[in-house]
Amino acid sequence: MPDLYWEDFEPGQRIELGSRTVTEEEIVEFGRAWDPQPFHVDPLAAKDSVFGGLIASGWHTGAMWMRLYVENVLGAGSRGSPGIEELRWLAPVRPGDTLTGSLTVLETTPSERDPTRGTVRIRAEMTNGDGIVVMRMTSRGHFGRRSPV
Amino acid sequence: MPDLYWEDFEPGQRIELGSRTVTEEEIVEFGRAWDPQPFHVDPLAAKDSVFGGLIASGWHTGAMWMRLYVENVLGAGSRGSPGIEELRWLAPVRPGDTLTGSLTVLETTPSERDPTRGTVRIRAEMTNGDGIVVMRMTSRGHFGRRSPV
Repeated sequence: MPDLYWEDFEPGQRIELGSRTVTEEEIVEFGRAWDPQPFHVDPLAAKDSVFGGLIASGWHTGAMWMRLYVENVLGAGSRGSPGIEELRWLAPVRPGDTLTGSLTVLETTPSERDPTRGTVRIRAEMTNGDGIVVMRMTSRGHFGRRSPV
Repeated sequence: MPDLYWEDFEPGQRIELGSRTVTEEEIVEFGRAWDPQPFHVDPLAAKDSVFGGLIASGWHTGAMWMRLYVENVLGAGSRGSPGIEELRWLAPVRPGDTLTGSLTVLETTPSERDPTRGTVRIRAEMTNGDGIVVMRMTSRGHFGRRSPV
């Protein structure tokens, strides 16, 4: 389990989050549960859609990135997230795609109210096997401090 | 199934998306799959966390809103989404919470490149049973036009 705290991040730092391959079964399962549009759940209907075939829900792509982020970065230091500044779905994610997650630290800010934590602003990316960035996101996370002021 | 096209939206329009109650089982299941931090998957560890108990992953809350949006708004006219402009998780979502989704149309823009579609910019909200907005998001969706220019 990772064990990163606010002090462990610095602007410019890049962290590789590893990869995950997405199957048609998983795309359909996620789609049925949360985003049951034909191009996420029905391979035949998806073929006739503007996407030309089944694609993953954007929320699924975000969740896949989150899973990699938790596995590699979030441990006892994580205090949740206030939200996302911007998220772009830049290219379709299709069955069999292997997605690689990464993040770059943009900014670290100590909390003004709470001396035991700080905020880390990151740029997150998911890239497919062709090197195309399929999702890009700027978001913030709260982290506990190893050494509260 | 809803059947809304680009022409069916206009700025200021508010659409109610109905409600959904989230169980502890669903919070833990979603957390285990996509966001396995202790405060999403382990009721006991969650009690000792800054959240004081189990809370839903923010991605889960987003996915719940998406599900309501698909059920009430997205039909044959939906052409996917380029992304989210901003998303804020404003209050914790806990087991047993009943969340009500809504959206307000901010702007509708015809595509400059594609005469068969347009973009709808919305403000989305999820509100709990106490009337507290737990998630607020500004995002864009592409929709087909009933009458291509």
